[in-house]
Amino acid sequence: MIYLDNASTSFPKPEIVFDRMDSFQRTICANPGRGAHRMAIESAREVMLTRELLAKLFNIKDPSNIVFTLNCTEALNLAIKGILGNRRHIVISSMEHNSVLRPLTHMREFGVEFDTIASLENGEPDLHSLEAAIKPDTGLIVCTHASNVTGDLLPVSEIGGIARRMSIPFMVDAAQTAGTVPIDVEGNNIDILAFPGHKGLLGPQGTGGLWFREGLDLEPLRYGGTGSHSEDAYQPKFSPDRYESGTLNTPGIVGLGAGVRYILDKGIENIRRSEIELTEYLSERIRNIDGISCYGHMDANRKTGIVSFNFEEVNCSEVAHVLDRGFEIAVRSGLHCAPMAHKAIGTFPVGTVRVSLGIFNTKEHINALILALSEISKEIGKGKR
Amino acid sequence: MIYLDNASTSFPKPEIVFDRMDSFQRTICANPGRGAHRMAIESAREVMLTRELLAKLFNIKDPSNIVFTLNCTEALNLAIKGILGNRRHIVISSMEHNSVLRPLTHMREFGVEFDTIASLENGEPDLHSLEAAIKPDTGLIVCTHASNVTGDLLPVSEIGGIARRMSIPFMVDAAQTAGTVPIDVEGNNIDILAFPGHKGLLGPQGTGGLWFREGLDLEPLRYGGTGSHSEDAYQPKFSPDRYESGTLNTPGIVGLGAGVRYILDKGIENIRRSEIELTEYLSERIRNIDGISCYGHMDANRKTGIVSFNFEEVNCSEVAHVLDRGFEIAVRSGLHCAPMAHKAIGTFPVGTVRVSLGIFNTKEHINALILALSEISKEIGKGKR
Repeated sequence: MIYLDNASTSFPKPEIVFDRMDSFQRTICANPGRGAHRMAIESAREVMLTRELLAKLFNIKDPSNIVFTLNCTEALNLAIKGILGNRRHIVISSMEHNSVLRPLTHMREFGVEFDTIASLENGEPDLHSLEAAIKPDTGLIVCTHASNVTGDLLPVSEIGGIARRMSIPFMVDAAQTAGTVPIDVEGNNIDILAFPGHKGLLGPQGTGGLWFREGLDLEPLRYGGTGSHSEDAYQPKFSPDRYESGTLNTPGIVGLGAGVRYILDKGIENIRRSEIELTEYLSERIRNIDGISCYGHMDANRKTGIVSFNFEEVNCSEVAHVLDRGFEIAVRSGLHCAPMAHKAIGTFPVGTVRVSLGIFNTKEHINALILALSEISKEIGKGKR
Repeated sequence: MIYLDNASTSFPKPEIVFDRMDSFQRTICANPGRGAHRMAIESAREVMLTRELLAKLFNIKDPSNIVFTLNCTEALNLAIKGILGNRRHIVISSMEHNSVLRPLTHMREFGVEFDTIASLENGEPDLHSLEAAIKPDTGLIVCTHASNVTGDLLPVSEIGGIARRMSIPFMVDAAQTAGTVPIDVEGNNIDILAFPGHKGLLGPQGTGGLWFREGLDLEPLRYGGTGSHSEDAYQPKFSPDRYESGTLNTPGIVGLGAGVRYILDKGIENIRRSEIELTEYLSERIRNIDGISCYGHMDANRKTGIVSFNFEEVNCSEVAHVLDRGFEIAVRSGLHCAPMAHKAIGTFPVGTVRVSLGIFNTKEHINALILALSEISKEIGKGKR
């Protein structure tokens, strides 16, 4: 199988991720924060270590403000539901995933309102429209770092700059960029960062996290045992305990730590450079196939390792099915849980075929894909004649 | 290290759990429900298989009403926060964990009230007091299946019978019993069952779940992408998708499936019989050590594999520390995130030393513990003279 569905989850992971998870589970894995015996302490130390590695990767000063979640969706929900307080209005980009759109749509029932930043003709968010969308009770601006449909990068630093000037917390959804595109919460003007552990960060599924700037007070999503201040019926006030009730996915967090260390060792700039090179290679070749339309930026410097396309007159799910069954190539088709983005690029409700590259993909994989798509194109051509 | 902290998390797991997780991650692990390629479908199939195995273990008819969570705390929060609707009153036992107490204490701010079932002199909940505590707007009764402090089993079937007669949903927190004590949601009159994956069920940390009876409508804790009905800005109405937004802990769920299969193969009745036998062995010996007081039932048939105790005049954390450093025995000390239970048994706020047995503990482990405790007892005796 040639796996080109890394925007859903990265596969494979570095050997060290599998090895660390397995050996940790077999030898040490007690419950961090519960009990003071050596195994529990060592488990807690491993969790802290992953926090520190993430802090290093994202230039975060306060690792204890990184909280671990089941996935990026939980992180986004925690921030969106947790921050509002008395401010009832949110501004979001037009490329947001259902993990932002669905909690907000639900919260409309409780009086929360949201507005979307209009797009320019080239698909970029119109920053003037952002400023116009801000109201006195705007409590949060949310922007994905890159569309999970097109891979297009959004100008988060600029949006963050506007947010900062207007004293509104700014959250970036790094679902498609954490671990592959450099992120610097200071340099990018980010106040809240939500990220999955199992995509670019190369950790296992079941991991994700949220970082928020010191001073931002979020309501937890879950209340319960934290192993700290057990005598108190109220949730502890301090992070990360306040947000991490119940037993963590410790082996997963250990695997995530191994993934982040692998990235730090390789260097995020080098990883990004390879991604651009491979995306360019893919992008140039796929555009030349008869009957294919691609969406989003053509310049690989302005996008992640995603290429979304359609054959004219053939449903995307059929193309993905043929790639899977006929050529052993795994891609994803459909709306990718992001209907808003498809409305923005004009592919709603049919969707697209999405090819998404990972750190272990090679030019050979792309050559195989291009060959397969060329054959599909020929078959379509025959059908037309 | 002799590990006697299985009530925090079971250690080790059966080999098959480690093996399945590792080989699944290395070969198949795509994102279930995202994409229709073979790896994604096989991943989804594995998740469904674990649901079915759990359904078999708990005599659940509708596996799709089992939803996976990060941990048992999330499951309890989902049910407690999700069920209330217009009914604003909850009745709980006096042995509940902070994972029940803290969400309820928080919800008091929003008008939710809760009452506690009074205890009889022997520590059992007073069922007459339960009936008296029920109000017209009682929307839920919650009872832990066994105390995580004493291991005492609570009469859940009887409580469930009363709840059923009064048409109030009844939730059991099976944190300490799932996988070690037989649970039959029909026979035990249970409407909602919350369970961790990483304790008696022998799965990895980062897994847990909630089952609820068909017809009960819960609000989700998280909203977002489900891989289904992507075109819809509203959360799907059907379970499990409604409650499983974002990427699941797929490798963890595969490991949990291996753990549950191990339990089904061994037979839950056999596992319970061994637990009783070993607990009796421990219980009889520990009581004979000079200066030790034990808490809760003495009859192993009425409890799980937990024995909680204190030495007179020595702090529980010091005892646990000496067991760890001096004897390489891991136990937990303190309040175990359950202050209510300690108030009920009279050990608040100091707590207890908790020894908790697992499926891989042996009489040799207990002999080593007893020897260590006897030495500690002698040292205390010397100090007194």
